[in-house]
Amino acid sequence: MRKPLLLTACCILLALGLRAQIPALERVEPMFWWTGMANPNLQLIVHGNNIASRDVQLSYPGVKLVAVHKVENSNYLFIDLKLFSTVVPGTFPIKFVKKGEKDLTYSYTLRARNHDANRAQGVTNKDLIYLLMPDRFSNGNTKNDVVPGMRETGLHRDSMYSRHGGDIQGLINHLDYLKDLGVTAVWMTPEIENDEPHASYHGYAVTDYYKIDPRYGTNELYKQYVEKCHAMGLKVIKDLVHNHIGTESYLIQDMPMKSWVHQWPKYTNSNFRDMAVEDPHASAIDKKIMLDGWFDKRMADLNENNIYVQNYLTQNHIWWVEYAGIDGFRLDTYPYNDAAYMAKWAQDVQREFPHLSIFGETLVWSVANQAFFVQGDKVNRGFDTHLPGVTDGVVKDAIIEALNGKDGWTDGVNRLYAVIAQDFLYADPTKNTIFLDNHDMSRFLSTIHEDYAKYKSGMAILMTMRGVPQMYYGDEILMKGESNPDGLVREDFAGGWKEDKVNKFTAEGRSEKENDAFNYVRKLANYRKNTPAIQTGKLMQFIPQKGIYVYFRYDDQKTVMIVYNSNEKEASTTTDYFAERIKGVKKAKNVISDETIDLNNLTIPGKSTLILELLPANK
Amino acid sequence: MRKPLLLTACCILLALGLRAQIPALERVEPMFWWTGMANPNLQLIVHGNNIASRDVQLSYPGVKLVAVHKVENSNYLFIDLKLFSTVVPGTFPIKFVKKGEKDLTYSYTLRARNHDANRAQGVTNKDLIYLLMPDRFSNGNTKNDVVPGMRETGLHRDSMYSRHGGDIQGLINHLDYLKDLGVTAVWMTPEIENDEPHASYHGYAVTDYYKIDPRYGTNELYKQYVEKCHAMGLKVIKDLVHNHIGTESYLIQDMPMKSWVHQWPKYTNSNFRDMAVEDPHASAIDKKIMLDGWFDKRMADLNENNIYVQNYLTQNHIWWVEYAGIDGFRLDTYPYNDAAYMAKWAQDVQREFPHLSIFGETLVWSVANQAFFVQGDKVNRGFDTHLPGVTDGVVKDAIIEALNGKDGWTDGVNRLYAVIAQDFLYADPTKNTIFLDNHDMSRFLSTIHEDYAKYKSGMAILMTMRGVPQMYYGDEILMKGESNPDGLVREDFAGGWKEDKVNKFTAEGRSEKENDAFNYVRKLANYRKNTPAIQTGKLMQFIPQKGIYVYFRYDDQKTVMIVYNSNEKEASTTTDYFAERIKGVKKAKNVISDETIDLNNLTIPGKSTLILELLPANK
Repeated sequence: MRKPLLLTACCILLALGLRAQIPALERVEPMFWWTGMANPNLQLIVHGNNIASRDVQLSYPGVKLVAVHKVENSNYLFIDLKLFSTVVPGTFPIKFVKKGEKDLTYSYTLRARNHDANRAQGVTNKDLIYLLMPDRFSNGNTKNDVVPGMRETGLHRDSMYSRHGGDIQGLINHLDYLKDLGVTAVWMTPEIENDEPHASYHGYAVTDYYKIDPRYGTNELYKQYVEKCHAMGLKVIKDLVHNHIGTESYLIQDMPMKSWVHQWPKYTNSNFRDMAVEDPHASAIDKKIMLDGWFDKRMADLNENNIYVQNYLTQNHIWWVEYAGIDGFRLDTYPYNDAAYMAKWAQDVQREFPHLSIFGETLVWSVANQAFFVQGDKVNRGFDTHLPGVTDGVVKDAIIEALNGKDGWTDGVNRLYAVIAQDFLYADPTKNTIFLDNHDMSRFLSTIHEDYAKYKSGMAILMTMRGVPQMYYGDEILMKGESNPDGLVREDFAGGWKEDKVNKFTAEGRSEKENDAFNYVRKLANYRKNTPAIQTGKLMQFIPQKGIYVYFRYDDQKTVMIVYNSNEKEASTTTDYFAERIKGVKKAKNVISDETIDLNNLTIPGKSTLILELLPANK
Repeated sequence: MRKPLLLTACCILLALGLRAQIPALERVEPMFWWTGMANPNLQLIVHGNNIASRDVQLSYPGVKLVAVHKVENSNYLFIDLKLFSTVVPGTFPIKFVKKGEKDLTYSYTLRARNHDANRAQGVTNKDLIYLLMPDRFSNGNTKNDVVPGMRETGLHRDSMYSRHGGDIQGLINHLDYLKDLGVTAVWMTPEIENDEPHASYHGYAVTDYYKIDPRYGTNELYKQYVEKCHAMGLKVIKDLVHNHIGTESYLIQDMPMKSWVHQWPKYTNSNFRDMAVEDPHASAIDKKIMLDGWFDKRMADLNENNIYVQNYLTQNHIWWVEYAGIDGFRLDTYPYNDAAYMAKWAQDVQREFPHLSIFGETLVWSVANQAFFVQGDKVNRGFDTHLPGVTDGVVKDAIIEALNGKDGWTDGVNRLYAVIAQDFLYADPTKNTIFLDNHDMSRFLSTIHEDYAKYKSGMAILMTMRGVPQMYYGDEILMKGESNPDGLVREDFAGGWKEDKVNKFTAEGRSEKENDAFNYVRKLANYRKNTPAIQTGKLMQFIPQKGIYVYFRYDDQKTVMIVYNSNEKEASTTTDYFAERIKGVKKAKNVISDETIDLNNLTIPGKSTLILELLPANK
């Protein structure tokens, strides 16, 4: 996420127990769990008025009450359980007893794990991710537009900071659209409760980790959404925020302990400098402010060194996967997190779900800065982050430079070549998510000054370069917008609301040019979907010559040649130089036009890209 | 080196034995060797007319004739000797015999190794390197200005491509000047024979590996020069060219075998793209052209996979160290060399001279591209290059950006911060040589548009940043010049020639401003020379704030605070933020002015740098 531009001054309650009276037993989290987990340990957090004054009693075969922890705030108890391999699904009471007072009881359920093969599948380079903001995509249920009792109750589609009413039902209603487009994985920005008074649509100030925001739907609906996706062959990514927590969360309003979040004598912003984490010469204060400074006044910086915080977050994330069957996680603001915890977190999660995919958000300067955060031994920082991949913003910048920049030794299209050449810094660059835009930056079409040839080239590169391609909702219908304020890149998908005058989910609702763009992206996406050489094949790139950049994706079955002419004018190239990949093949199929062309000499219009599937003579 | 701009078309003899009649025994190399070397193996190359038709005979206690290799060209023999640990210094005949012909004899000497402690000392971050081009620094011996029989005989000081007459004696004459300036190590561009017809002053087209260019002096004089340096406490760096060989060398004019150099059907330049070596997705052809393409038509690309070439180069380099006592090597065009050979080379050299230092020239894009070539496991490429450090051109660019650029997230002074933060990519960044300019780029003063405040700041950063600082001759007297053509940055040091009207080696010959610059650099250099905290102390840098960049060099004895104000205007900063290094100290000495200042609040003029030695109260 990017730092929100709407900063709302507010009063953060850093002391404990200042909240109005809470029920004697307000909640237990995780509210239920499963048998058969790899990790036998479970830590329950119990919140209730002076709950720490009570003893805890429970009895269930295969469940051991290991410890009950009292903390600074007597409204909390942390209960350590061990679930033996013999434990079977069932329900049992957890009693909170105090002499002279009535027992409090929570009925705890252990469910059976669901081992269906299409759960927690992992999103890989075989996929195409579609990123959307649930408030801005489609309103499928107007009844949940305004939820009484929540802090933000307005619905103002003409305000970029207000809620617009989009929801999970709206997304479900358009899964067929995404399927038709060639998308195979959906990434929503956070859909769990953000009960903040302002800009709550934003999603990164979580107030209830176990609850889908009622304005988006219910937990049950979210589960149905994932199941529906899986039934359609789509995968689901959940967006996680480890670094911070919404200040309206009960965990902040009535903190278990002061060390739940990073405390400062006066409000202190992060310096937003990942380099202070990477730098072997960094000062302690720069590093501390980077990691422990707050992202925003409404986003309290969680203390990930606190074991209770660690358990709380990790269990919550595992809970959602087991509950709903999610396939992958996107991790917000990865460099701001505690590195040791994040490494442990990744191992804990993948221990339960070995195929689940994970990629971290890194908006950093260079390939090296990205690679610092990635798993493996290529950039050796002395320990393994266990983070398979990142949001590859450096490749994004390089693609934009290849489209917009002037040719130079490492400028223009040579930048893209140079950045991809730095893949030597990754253990596996194909785990990176590549993209042209997202919710935190100007839309792709605006970045390239609405040049349609560049648009097509950018999309062609996105769909054929190594990594996991991610597109942003509406790119396929030529939505545009400059960031700053970022609401301009978060506009509604026209047709997602019943009252919309046009419906761009349908060919009839799109203009001729929008249909051309849609059809182009669909063609590309579906070609990619059916071409393992582009998904998982090897990459070979050649040094750009005279502004023409050529790379290949290939496996034993197919070879696809991508030719991008970065010059403003049409240019030609012979193909002798690429003999090691062309291997004497004379003809190729233009993947977009389906025409067969002669490989001997290629002519490419200015700023355009050819995607050519080689046609060996004997096939 | 940079690709020379003067390309002279010429006819390269790629076939064998085309040269005019050569003597029956023209030469044996190495012409002598030593006992007591770590490596017992020695390979002699013998060149003589049809020498391969003769048998080789020798007999000396402790020397075994292991093998005699005949190669494609019958004018060569390669003789493998083994020198046992029992061998003692002495001279013995090597006979080349043929029935019916008179014996040919070469009298081979094995000398005793010289174990003086001040030989092969290594140049480290305790040093300050002064780089000069011997033809352009001082003419100490006019008798060798023109050497009859050599291909370039003109002496034209008004031509940037011609020889100017500078020589080793001229350098010797001014060692006291360098010593006074605070220099501790001298790096000359190559001083061995370049008997090329044009621009032979350039030095990187070697024609005799075992011979100081007669226009610079003799082998014996070079040895004396090194000894004189050592006696004065100066060290000597030799500039080696592994990648290519001058086309007028006997080894090219009458090649031992076709595979001595990389052959191409038609002349093929290198593509000068180090990335093709680094890129895991590189095509074979790009990589081959990078490594095996020629640097220039007059610089044949040596085939470093040829074991005879390997032995020849490695032995030659070891020969020079043992012969003259050289302290360090600078390796030209490092990325263009065969990586496996260079790793073996470094180990072979350091096996003989464990303290000898080595740094490789890398003119590449980014820290990652530099780090790729460096020793250790920080950027894991699957094998260890054994190269301790590089010419840190990325830090150079970053210093220039810090001086010239506009402040931005990673622009202006933040670039320098960001680049230094990437030291996580190096096993030991202090092995890198840092610099502001060299013979292949615009002079520092011109790069900063002759802004004197920037000049002083650049020099201050050079002398206090981590690594081995290297300055370029004349920077201290404000020599300027834009590269392209690069002759403009290789002008004569005024006063180095008897006929010069001014002598800038003396205070009297320098203008007031030049003396100010000289005195500033001398003050800095001598402060550095006497301050281990700056030489070998730790570095701590802080994120620049409002264009002010603060870093510290410190050890147990001293703490030095460097404050660079990148703003055009004077700026102030409090020092509370730096408490972890200032540790309550109130006063500091301004290292340049010797004034004591109050640390509480610092005021720094625009584009200026303060170097402050902290003065703890109890000292």
